[in-house]
Amino acid sequence: MNSHPFDAAVALQVQVDGTFLGRTSAAYANMVGPFGGITAAQALNAVLQHPQRLGDPISLTVNFAAALADGPFTVSARPARTNRSTQHWVIEMQQSGETVLTGTAFFGLRRETWGADENTMPEVPVPADVLRATGPARVEWVKRYEMRFAEGAIPAEWNGADQGASRTRLWLRDDPPRPLDFASLTGLSDVFFPRIWRRRPLLVPIGTVSMTVYYHADASLLQSTGSGYLLGQTQAQAFRNGYFDQTAQLWNEAGELLVTTHQVVYYKE
Amino acid sequence: MNSHPFDAAVALQVQVDGTFLGRTSAAYANMVGPFGGITAAQALNAVLQHPQRLGDPISLTVNFAAALADGPFTVSARPARTNRSTQHWVIEMQQSGETVLTGTAFFGLRRETWGADENTMPEVPVPADVLRATGPARVEWVKRYEMRFAEGAIPAEWNGADQGASRTRLWLRDDPPRPLDFASLTGLSDVFFPRIWRRRPLLVPIGTVSMTVYYHADASLLQSTGSGYLLGQTQAQAFRNGYFDQTAQLWNEAGELLVTTHQVVYYKE
Repeated sequence: MNSHPFDAAVALQVQVDGTFLGRTSAAYANMVGPFGGITAAQALNAVLQHPQRLGDPISLTVNFAAALADGPFTVSARPARTNRSTQHWVIEMQQSGETVLTGTAFFGLRRETWGADENTMPEVPVPADVLRATGPARVEWVKRYEMRFAEGAIPAEWNGADQGASRTRLWLRDDPPRPLDFASLTGLSDVFFPRIWRRRPLLVPIGTVSMTVYYHADASLLQSTGSGYLLGQTQAQAFRNGYFDQTAQLWNEAGELLVTTHQVVYYKE
Repeated sequence: MNSHPFDAAVALQVQVDGTFLGRTSAAYANMVGPFGGITAAQALNAVLQHPQRLGDPISLTVNFAAALADGPFTVSARPARTNRSTQHWVIEMQQSGETVLTGTAFFGLRRETWGADENTMPEVPVPADVLRATGPARVEWVKRYEMRFAEGAIPAEWNGADQGASRTRLWLRDDPPRPLDFASLTGLSDVFFPRIWRRRPLLVPIGTVSMTVYYHADASLLQSTGSGYLLGQTQAQAFRNGYFDQTAQLWNEAGELLVTTHQVVYYKE
């Protein structure tokens, strides 16, 4: 599957100083700079590929400090603390000597325990019964994902009328389908269009400033999910004076909760 | 108000190398090491007190890499990127040359915009009509907060029976009352007892590994809230193989959403 555009986009090359060299991908271009989900996946990938890596990701926070310019970037991943079965990472991405992303990650070895999914998958029609979103894509990265909106699609009319709520539910997966891994799950965590456009349909300028992903899926759950659809649900909690947050969940078709994620987004109006 | 235990606990002293020197506080001691909320507040305080600080906090992520030992620590706060009206910080706390906390923060200057609280305050009785939690405190820090549980108090019986849900709602504030600021709001964001104890009452060992706070309150909203009560609501989304997450919201008595926060917590059983 090395020919999949996602694999090409997140590929990193280790440098003599231990940092990694990557390159923005035209296939995942956004309005200004790349799709944040692919940048987050590249940041995580620096830890995943690091020779000192212990265990699998439990949490990741990335902060988007500036829009990336098209071209190369470097990522450094430093294991700030390694315990017996857990590890804390500090991540930084640079272009032309300037920081464009900061981040931290927590990795761990998991043991089997009692468990439960408390936020259970909402009832929606199966993917085959939900129309695939089509039409002219404003930005290139959107074409890399199959999206089937069960609730709260991108507004058809940008009339600015307060909708009272911002919830969206959709089936989604990579296009072409690709077996899920931690990097692609990170990208999928950022697929949701900004909640301000849903709550109050106006195409105001926006930009995610910080995003956190909690990985409830372990390697075996990724494997059993494979290249199936994920159900994504997202909603904002507050919009105030230039910033709003949005929370999201991703379940697999079997209803297992793989990810909970949160982000805070700048908006202008 | 310099005599308030919170102010003494978060006090930092600038060093010649630009890092800050702090000290753990016996008043906020937890089972092992200090209450995580006070450590998070100390980390934020390093940015708040930094001479290059621009604007107010919009988001903070702290990762607890090891339990702090009683005694001194250093905090470094580095402005990794400063834009016209926003700033990205990288934070690290050390004891005896070892990293005990990593973190990032995003600060910004806010402008007035359209806004809405989408996650609205649930209806609960007013603080005066909810009993204050009393009884022997297992740990010292709990005595620094007034807590009035409207729903989901600490279990009276540790019988391990699955409760099916983990939600808690409570009125809370510093004890003695103290005018709210960004540091104390950070501490208050971590006051909730671990959701695993609520979902399935067993005193299993736990420890927060990562916590993110989104500040929807700006300086004027902090001021209007003053030393009033906050309503906290918290619930888990998933428990699986050693880690669970918990989300929380904090509203003031007027029903304004001040904070949304998330954490991922290790549990053993």
